Amino acid sequence: MDEQIIFSLLEQRNFKELKPILSEMNGADVAHILSEVDENDLPVVFRLLPKDLAAETFVEMDSDLQEILIRRFSDKELKQIMDELYVDDAVDLIEEMPASLVRRILQQADAETRSAINTILQYPEDSAGSIMTTEYVYLYPKMTVEESFAQIRKNGIDKETVYTCYVIDDCRHLLGLVTVKDLLLHSYETKVEDIMEDHVIYIETHADKETAAQMFDKYSFLAIPVVDSEIRLVGIITIDDAMDVLQEENTEDIAKMAAVKPSDKPYLKTSVFAIWRNRIPWLLVLMVSATFTGLILNTFESKLSLISSVLFACVPMIMDTGGNAGSQASVTVIRSLALNEITTKDAFRVLWKEIRASFLLAASLAVACFGKLMLVDNLLFGYKDYTPFTCLVVSLALMCTVVIAKLVGCMLPMLAKKVKLDPAVVASPFITTIVDALSLILYCGLAIALLG
Amino acid sequence: MDEQIIFSLLEQRNFKELKPILSEMNGADVAHILSEVDENDLPVVFRLLPKDLAAETFVEMDSDLQEILIRRFSDKELKQIMDELYVDDAVDLIEEMPASLVRRILQQADAETRSAINTILQYPEDSAGSIMTTEYVYLYPKMTVEESFAQIRKNGIDKETVYTCYVIDDCRHLLGLVTVKDLLLHSYETKVEDIMEDHVIYIETHADKETAAQMFDKYSFLAIPVVDSEIRLVGIITIDDAMDVLQEENTEDIAKMAAVKPSDKPYLKTSVFAIWRNRIPWLLVLMVSATFTGLILNTFESKLSLISSVLFACVPMIMDTGGNAGSQASVTVIRSLALNEITTKDAFRVLWKEIRASFLLAASLAVACFGKLMLVDNLLFGYKDYTPFTCLVVSLALMCTVVIAKLVGCMLPMLAKKVKLDPAVVASPFITTIVDALSLILYCGLAIALLG
Repeated sequence: MDEQIIFSLLEQRNFKELKPILSEMNGADVAHILSEVDENDLPVVFRLLPKDLAAETFVEMDSDLQEILIRRFSDKELKQIMDELYVDDAVDLIEEMPASLVRRILQQADAETRSAINTILQYPEDSAGSIMTTEYVYLYPKMTVEESFAQIRKNGIDKETVYTCYVIDDCRHLLGLVTVKDLLLHSYETKVEDIMEDHVIYIETHADKETAAQMFDKYSFLAIPVVDSEIRLVGIITIDDAMDVLQEENTEDIAKMAAVKPSDKPYLKTSVFAIWRNRIPWLLVLMVSATFTGLILNTFESKLSLISSVLFACVPMIMDTGGNAGSQASVTVIRSLALNEITTKDAFRVLWKEIRASFLLAASLAVACFGKLMLVDNLLFGYKDYTPFTCLVVSLALMCTVVIAKLVGCMLPMLAKKVKLDPAVVASPFITTIVDALSLILYCGLAIALLG
Repeated sequence: MDEQIIFSLLEQRNFKELKPILSEMNGADVAHILSEVDENDLPVVFRLLPKDLAAETFVEMDSDLQEILIRRFSDKELKQIMDELYVDDAVDLIEEMPASLVRRILQQADAETRSAINTILQYPEDSAGSIMTTEYVYLYPKMTVEESFAQIRKNGIDKETVYTCYVIDDCRHLLGLVTVKDLLLHSYETKVEDIMEDHVIYIETHADKETAAQMFDKYSFLAIPVVDSEIRLVGIITIDDAMDVLQEENTEDIAKMAAVKPSDKPYLKTSVFAIWRNRIPWLLVLMVSATFTGLILNTFESKLSLISSVLFACVPMIMDTGGNAGSQASVTVIRSLALNEITTKDAFRVLWKEIRASFLLAASLAVACFGKLMLVDNLLFGYKDYTPFTCLVVSLALMCTVVIAKLVGCMLPMLAKKVKLDPAVVASPFITTIVDALSLILYCGLAIALLG
């Protein structure tokens, strides 16, 4: 359906024609439409939706719009939504709402859901337990395929994923799993214990949620069981939530690499003040650290000027190239660490690779730099201060800078990981500052030693 | 199972004890173990695996190890693997292998698989068609639930996802879908047409594979149907492949933001030469562009020195802060564009947000800078050159730099997107160069105008 038509119907407040159109849409798309609706019309438009689509849409909405809706809902309406929500979505909702609304929301949930919500809420924020759902299909080993289907039919309607069923004993210890595909492909009399996979890969409730998400990436599962310290099944994590976690972690890493504190809201929903708060700390830190570079520059300035006026003109080129070379290496290593392509154990392999690469790069850049200075600046523009020997010294300094930048760039994230810091934090801006200072000292030192 | 034990068994070449241990493991884990095995032992260890695990492991291995194995396989062994592979995995394999091996691989695939492989290979590299599989379960509208289960049992064993079944007519037009969950929760006599979802969200074969992956992120599907221009079903994309695409795109974006050409291999598998080739272009471009900054610096140097020796010391601080402020804005906007949180239509909303945020940030930084220069440099260290007026001019220049950097930083990616370039390419390094030049001109201009 064309969005243009929908928005023009909305503008005309032609809800009668709108209703059948919205009813045929997917919840995620309706949520997108609702995000553009005027606040006062929002409850009216939302009430056009059939019950199950309403819940599906509600889950996909931004939390500020959810809040508006809940405040306008009657208790009965709120209860209808709560009845349709999966437990993990209900938990997400409660985590976003102000305390005053949370009480009202929990009152409208049935006792079983309320207790499930409380179970999940007790796990630490970034743990596997916090993103699991307690709704799953369980089977016992002695059940037949036929009984299993009966169990799924009986209990499955509310369960988020019915396609992986977990086999447990009477104490809820996790014994194995069967997929619905396995059940479908075996005869009705087959016992679950004969077809179940008994080497189940699971995750503990207190493990990092990022670890859980990476397991999906690695193993291509649709769900992963979450167990307590005695391997008793307490919940499952489904692949859609894992995908959200992966995307979130990627967004966070990218933000950190750009020296921004990650925001938990989409850009347009982030307030100007929040943007300020997320960006100012690193800007201040980096500003202060840049003054050291300034000090170094000031110390050497007069000496450099005495030697040759052109030496100064090359400072930005040396510093920028160093910074870029360093951030190339650091970002590559940070990403490889995040994808588990390398671990801190690979430090020497990484170092060896970067040393070789950096010499190749440094040599290419030095040749290009020498050629550019001699041909363009000396011959073409006639700056005769660019003597061959001066250009050689500049190129040499550039070479050393690139090599140092690459080594700092690749080793710092490994070091951060080793001491359990987030490698993404030591990315480009941080490394640029270090490399700036190092390259400046090196450049000035070399120039004074060789040309002074 | 403890990896340590496995590796020590491998070292002792104790294959007898190794075999039962490996047999209980997941393919992804076995592939990890095999990546550490000596090339000569690789085929031996691989042959320890039971048939289905062998295929599962093979799919997860890096392409260089797959190539080694295929070269050592007998035709019969190769055929066994090919029989177990899903079509989309077979396509991935063929895309990675040298031409000489591709012929041998195709010869060992059965005629049906070969034709399916060729169908998928004909789609452009980054299209939805190229990541789909042609193996899916299809039903007809007049079938009952019971007949549907029979159809799944008959055809489902080879199909990658049996949980979403697509309903088609005799010309393969896509009419609807039913999930196995729907089938399980309805009586055996129910007709498929009565329970099928008939507003199916699909993607066309020639759409971008990233678009397909983002649909999974948005809609939480397990599979998405791929259709031709006449809405005839030609394949499906499964969520695990979508997850791979998302991770790949994230890695590519991160690489581009750090001025690196993305590599299609994991870091440790990328040759030193390939690393050089991926990194040298941007380093060269940025080095040359940095010489403009040098030219500007050179032009103003003597004038700045005449006014006050301290003005020079502040150049790195102004330039670095500008660069950081610009990359914060650009990376935030690039990520929001990638996540579809904003589109180019939101340009004014983004601009307005960044203008307000940049004034807040610029004011905070200017105050901090003024305070630091006056308190630390003037009072504490006694550099009396830092007069209040000089510090004011420096802080003013810093303010303007931050505002300009933020505006360039947020608008350039939007502009890139508008003209259908990849926004990630105009990230930090590119913006830093522009901001460096602008801020330097501004700083020197201000200093000369106000202090000269």
